[in-house]
Amino acid sequence: MTTDDLVSFRRDLHRRPEPAWREFYTTARIVEELESRLDLDELHVGPEAIATDHRLAVPDDVELDRWYEQARETDVDEAILERLEGGYTGAVAVLERGDGPTVGLRVDVDGLPREESDDPDHLPAAEGFRSEHEGAMHACGHDAHATIGVGVLERIADGDFSGTLKVFFQPAEEVIGGGKAMANREHVADVDYLLAVHVGLDHPTGTVVAGIDGFLAVCHLEAEFSGEPAHAGGHPEQGRNAVQAMATAVQNLYGIPRHNDGKTRVNAGVVEGGSAANIVPEHARIVAEVRGETTDLMEYVRTHAKRIVRSAAEMHDCEVSFETGAEAPSATSDEELVSLVADVAGETTGVETVLERDELGGSEDATFLMREVQQNGGHAAYVGVGTDHPGGHHTSTFDVDEESIGQAVDVLSKTIERIDRERP
Amino acid sequence: MTTDDLVSFRRDLHRRPEPAWREFYTTARIVEELESRLDLDELHVGPEAIATDHRLAVPDDVELDRWYEQARETDVDEAILERLEGGYTGAVAVLERGDGPTVGLRVDVDGLPREESDDPDHLPAAEGFRSEHEGAMHACGHDAHATIGVGVLERIADGDFSGTLKVFFQPAEEVIGGGKAMANREHVADVDYLLAVHVGLDHPTGTVVAGIDGFLAVCHLEAEFSGEPAHAGGHPEQGRNAVQAMATAVQNLYGIPRHNDGKTRVNAGVVEGGSAANIVPEHARIVAEVRGETTDLMEYVRTHAKRIVRSAAEMHDCEVSFETGAEAPSATSDEELVSLVADVAGETTGVETVLERDELGGSEDATFLMREVQQNGGHAAYVGVGTDHPGGHHTSTFDVDEESIGQAVDVLSKTIERIDRERP
Amino acid sequence: MTTDDLVSFRRDLHRRPEPAWREFYTTARIVEELESRLDLDELHVGPEAIATDHRLAVPDDVELDRWYEQARETDVDEAILERLEGGYTGAVAVLERGDGPTVGLRVDVDGLPREESDDPDHLPAAEGFRSEHEGAMHACGHDAHATIGVGVLERIADGDFSGTLKVFFQPAEEVIGGGKAMANREHVADVDYLLAVHVGLDHPTGTVVAGIDGFLAVCHLEAEFSGEPAHAGGHPEQGRNAVQAMATAVQNLYGIPRHNDGKTRVNAGVVEGGSAANIVPEHARIVAEVRGETTDLMEYVRTHAKRIVRSAAEMHDCEVSFETGAEAPSATSDEELVSLVADVAGETTGVETVLERDELGGSEDATFLMREVQQNGGHAAYVGVGTDHPGGHHTSTFDVDEESIGQAVDVLSKTIERIDRERP
Amino acid sequence: MTTDDLVSFRRDLHRRPEPAWREFYTTARIVEELESRLDLDELHVGPEAIATDHRLAVPDDVELDRWYEQARETDVDEAILERLEGGYTGAVAVLERGDGPTVGLRVDVDGLPREESDDPDHLPAAEGFRSEHEGAMHACGHDAHATIGVGVLERIADGDFSGTLKVFFQPAEEVIGGGKAMANREHVADVDYLLAVHVGLDHPTGTVVAGIDGFLAVCHLEAEFSGEPAHAGGHPEQGRNAVQAMATAVQNLYGIPRHNDGKTRVNAGVVEGGSAANIVPEHARIVAEVRGETTDLMEYVRTHAKRIVRSAAEMHDCEVSFETGAEAPSATSDEELVSLVADVAGETTGVETVLERDELGGSEDATFLMREVQQNGGHAAYVGVGTDHPGGHHTSTFDVDEESIGQAVDVLSKTIERIDRERP
Repeated sequence: MTTDDLVSFRRDLHRRPEPAWREFYTTARIVEELESRLDLDELHVGPEAIATDHRLAVPDDVELDRWYEQARETDVDEAILERLEGGYTGAVAVLERGDGPTVGLRVDVDGLPREESDDPDHLPAAEGFRSEHEGAMHACGHDAHATIGVGVLERIADGDFSGTLKVFFQPAEEVIGGGKAMANREHVADVDYLLAVHVGLDHPTGTVVAGIDGFLAVCHLEAEFSGEPAHAGGHPEQGRNAVQAMATAVQNLYGIPRHNDGKTRVNAGVVEGGSAANIVPEHARIVAEVRGETTDLMEYVRTHAKRIVRSAAEMHDCEVSFETGAEAPSATSDEELVSLVADVAGETTGVETVLERDELGGSEDATFLMREVQQNGGHAAYVGVGTDHPGGHHTSTFDVDEESIGQAVDVLSKTIERIDRERP
Repeated sequence: MTTDDLVSFRRDLHRRPEPAWREFYTTARIVEELESRLDLDELHVGPEAIATDHRLAVPDDVELDRWYEQARETDVDEAILERLEGGYTGAVAVLERGDGPTVGLRVDVDGLPREESDDPDHLPAAEGFRSEHEGAMHACGHDAHATIGVGVLERIADGDFSGTLKVFFQPAEEVIGGGKAMANREHVADVDYLLAVHVGLDHPTGTVVAGIDGFLAVCHLEAEFSGEPAHAGGHPEQGRNAVQAMATAVQNLYGIPRHNDGKTRVNAGVVEGGSAANIVPEHARIVAEVRGETTDLMEYVRTHAKRIVRSAAEMHDCEVSFETGAEAPSATSDEELVSLVADVAGETTGVETVLERDELGGSEDATFLMREVQQNGGHAAYVGVGTDHPGGHHTSTFDVDEESIGQAVDVLSKTIERIDRERP
Repeated sequence: MTTDDLVSFRRDLHRRPEPAWREFYTTARIVEELESRLDLDELHVGPEAIATDHRLAVPDDVELDRWYEQARETDVDEAILERLEGGYTGAVAVLERGDGPTVGLRVDVDGLPREESDDPDHLPAAEGFRSEHEGAMHACGHDAHATIGVGVLERIADGDFSGTLKVFFQPAEEVIGGGKAMANREHVADVDYLLAVHVGLDHPTGTVVAGIDGFLAVCHLEAEFSGEPAHAGGHPEQGRNAVQAMATAVQNLYGIPRHNDGKTRVNAGVVEGGSAANIVPEHARIVAEVRGETTDLMEYVRTHAKRIVRSAAEMHDCEVSFETGAEAPSATSDEELVSLVADVAGETTGVETVLERDELGGSEDATFLMREVQQNGGHAAYVGVGTDHPGGHHTSTFDVDEESIGQAVDVLSKTIERIDRERP
Repeated sequence: MTTDDLVSFRRDLHRRPEPAWREFYTTARIVEELESRLDLDELHVGPEAIATDHRLAVPDDVELDRWYEQARETDVDEAILERLEGGYTGAVAVLERGDGPTVGLRVDVDGLPREESDDPDHLPAAEGFRSEHEGAMHACGHDAHATIGVGVLERIADGDFSGTLKVFFQPAEEVIGGGKAMANREHVADVDYLLAVHVGLDHPTGTVVAGIDGFLAVCHLEAEFSGEPAHAGGHPEQGRNAVQAMATAVQNLYGIPRHNDGKTRVNAGVVEGGSAANIVPEHARIVAEVRGETTDLMEYVRTHAKRIVRSAAEMHDCEVSFETGAEAPSATSDEELVSLVADVAGETTGVETVLERDELGGSEDATFLMREVQQNGGHAAYVGVGTDHPGGHHTSTFDVDEESIGQAVDVLSKTIERIDRERP
């Protein structure tokens, strides 16, 4: 792909951002692009790409249908769309070039539920590829990631790579919902070396981070408290107050003891309850997340959190139903692979700064794939490719410097070829 | 009005329930009915009936407009509607028959935001006068109250009453929003004897409660907490957590010390906060109410509640804006008037049981009018007229036994005539 | 007894106040005084006066021994003391004068753990009968009550009463610990009319309250939380924090919903926990009390309180042992008896004001005896005899106007004689 | 000093443990021992050794006097004691041997308020040098530290060291109370290289940790809440409940947001409040501590903690007086010095294991001296010398393997000589 091709494809995806498990157009376009450019050995689409019963945080059917119908109104191939119906998105492309190592590249492809800026200073607005989906936006660069995946495939196909390359076009990263489903499908099982990539992360164009770490293990918890309504003036004693239960839980969730082994986090990010000022609240809800620097630390917080929520309900004579939502483990980039990426990056045109390591400080479900590979004896690294981005990640003015897309393709392709030669 | 007239008019109103400050059709129909039946001395409509700047809990313009437009689509007189535009609903009808005492009758006219049952066992559904306004319902009998108001006016007009009768068709009782506006208009100032009426209240048809008491003074409080968002995984220390502030407030609101002088109440009836599981919540909200057996007791709770909310915000380095919403004082029915009502009721056909007193245990903004009259040296009583009601007040299967409408007209009209004769 | 006798005996008791279940000297002196003055038919002392296994809130042996030894150092009859050893205090004196009604009079005899004022303006200090027991004081007039009991017995013995009089000298009222033990002994079972008496209660000398009501049912609860200590700097995650459990319980105890049926109370009166600033607290304690206007209301609060405490422990992975301590039910004075007392009081010299009823607003374990009598078909009244008291009840400058002792003897004796004649 | 001398002196101190600011006998014996063995150039005692107005966590006069009188009853030189009166303990010994570098050695000398085991398996009990001060014990090895200080001074005096050696015998480490006072006195100002030493810390005899880090900055906070008492049954509304304020503060203290920059800690280690079950609690108290991996992080927690405590008081209409008690900053051992200590230790007889670094995970006020030296351009290292200790630090069966005392003298003396030669 020429630079123009990369830019053009990225802008196409940018124009039609689709949030988690709704990447119907996106997946179909990737498939079309791959099929038009490459003679792939395998191309697993939708339900064949993922372990369908490991999908996390899937929206309801109404929401899925709405986005599906929207995709059907585009000019994308309806036959491909049909394979994705019901929220089975994503794809795995396989290129077999010999008996060399199996290398994986994971790119995520989903957008975010955020309105894109229409400020004329915002390049997508100025140049006409701003989101056409109201309330949705590629505000984290996954449009670039998908493009990089296609670009790397083509570059490797054109080179002398002697192993197998698998590119994982993963859905639903933003809700930590797709990584588990992709990691639990057999395609990951035989990967010897896995690379994941992210653009930006506050690094400018020309910087490469060879190994990003500091992925906090994370888990979403949703608690629904049910009590009994009552007239708050007439018979407060007849109520069982779900908001009191919720407030008690919130107070104590934030008080979970810190752990000496590393970072722990807890957040009651969304709460609600009650129906009217004069009714003892009969229901309440907490959408929380817990995190840990390691998966064990996350489990520590989760165990406390569940006990607190259950006891808070019991304290106010309420019931609580308690769902564990999306989750992701922690993971670490392997030293040998990180060194190799750093070497390659140092020799790549346009790369001015190479950082061996950096901390993410957030969560990512690429970790599911990284751990799967590492547990099977393979190696993994999460590579950061800097890009000038005017707005911060997840803000309405986020954009990528398209220059960095080609750089990412360069660094990753050359890394894959070096892996083939050196098997670090 | 014949019994059939009363029933017919009540069913007309029942079919078009309108919540607080949106009683456009309702007010217009009352005005039409009065004008068609009676030669009133005065008829104050909308902004002439209420002290417009004392309206409490008025919905926003979008909401008002929606209901106004809906009313315009009916066959009600558009000239009347225009006088009500902007949520200035309600009416005061005056009949001057001589220099006898000025007697007031207060009836409320608003519906509730509740979907009416379509169960064939529910009479309005079976007989075709179920609510035509989706999500709204006369679930507390105010359709009957308005009808009683018209009926009493006609009966008194036809009798030998020698004073002045004023009927207050009050809007927005359900949100405790209209009583203050009506009490602060000059029409109440010269009332010597005020009667208010409510049907049902768990008393069957044939029972009259001569004096209902136990109105808890009430005040709605709404607190909006504002903090600072932050990434809950990456930088929890950069957040100022509005949900923690809210939860602390809730816990402590319910812990306001009980008061030895009488009943106090507090309820955090609706709460909400935050935007996403992984964001430290930047905003939160509590819609609370406080009550007291007396106005002083309500003030006691309110003072504590405000201090708690402010301190909770401060504790978590948040701001809080704190609005006092609708409110109503407590009030007591006067003994002489209660005795007279009891006497009259005892002599009224169809009334089998007369209770001197009963406790409401809730709140009502008729108290604003009662206190206004009492502070001016007048007397007031809040009269309960039993009615068989299949579902409880405010439930989707509430209905009134239309038999009781005529009984209410009888008891109230005869009471007004006795007041004229006896001036208790 | 002459007025001087009454004063002298009261001052003797005042000089040696003994708190709950430690009334060794007090009981012995009462016994001595009764035996020296009267030819009683029965005199049940210590373990014969009470149901020993229903004693509540008994102090530990060290404390009991200390007071026992102190009593042995006085000149009181050691043979009597020996019958009381181990904290079996109190006495029941019986005078049988015929087959008339059995009338009971209950007086309490214990002091309080409070240092008495040595201000020269404090009469007991000025006149040399201030407490000789450091840290203990008759600060609630029970010295006067015991004296009244003796005085009434002598007066009735000298009159023409034709029934049976039983005077219950009850220990441990201040800790609500003795009433149950006394009520569960057979002596109360055949009482037809029970009078209880209290001086003061903010009424001046010359006022009599014929029937005091408003006794809140009460129960003491003591919760001991046990967690696990840990170094708060090094390993906070290894602790199980009993102070967090306690604080959560306290916050929610005060938030127990108010009840529409009447007064409820809850108080976490004493709390403590932890051992050092740098240790995660392994233990904590709450000494709470719950009350209700009726025994049912108290039970309502108790049920909530227990659940809250247990859930708070569980929430923080702590154990809790939960003891129910002293308790007393509510009770009401019977109308007929109250009327009779009021009549008598109105005719008694020195009584200027007679109140039919007044509310106590606190708790009292005379209610155990009152309920026992009432459940057996008898009648009971709790009589207040005003006394000028410079300091409030339970304060260090409390004192009684000794004039009122004689008035109490007059009113009660005459009431007993009227009961005999009229059997109301 | 021979090994026997070291053991004998250590056992003398062990027999008379004295807690913080009460090290009268201890200081005097150190002074006597130094004067008898050495020709010191300077010996600053008590108020001359410390900045007297920077003492933290000083006990009250009654407590100081009690220990002072106890010391006077021993055979220690009364003239020395007199210089210490009022809790001005500690000493700084100076040996000037030329114009080489100024090296400091800090040893702490205080005991702990803990009863020593009298189990025959506990060596001090078996061999007759168990604590003679009831309730006090050298349970952290500071008796060994003081001995090491004396031993190093003598060894250096006997060698060819060419600089100045200052040994800081610091009082009150256990309450983090003496380090600030010692660091703020001029004796520390010109130190070029500072060594601090601690025995044990779960390392066995034969292990040396060249540089201990991970000192959490710490601050003690004590909050006294004052409200208003009231009868909890009769007039709960008249109270201002200090226990509610305290419980609210505790709940929210533990909820202070975690900080991404490193460890933070908060602990409400001791709480108490209230006086009786039936009194609305008028007072309450929290003894808390906050810590941070850096001094800034500790300040972050402290700022939040203070705001929370103040707001909790305000919320319940209480006053709060808020004292900041003892504190200590964080500190880090300098690399060059650590390397040198490691080298020396590797060559020392009896040392089998050398660890470059280890984490303490607690707090220490040697950090005040370390930072003072480092801020003046000098270097500091905190050295751990392993010792077999049967019981854990601060437990009643703690003891040191006296073998390690000589090893510590060896390692430290040789380090000081190497510093003199190499000036790292």
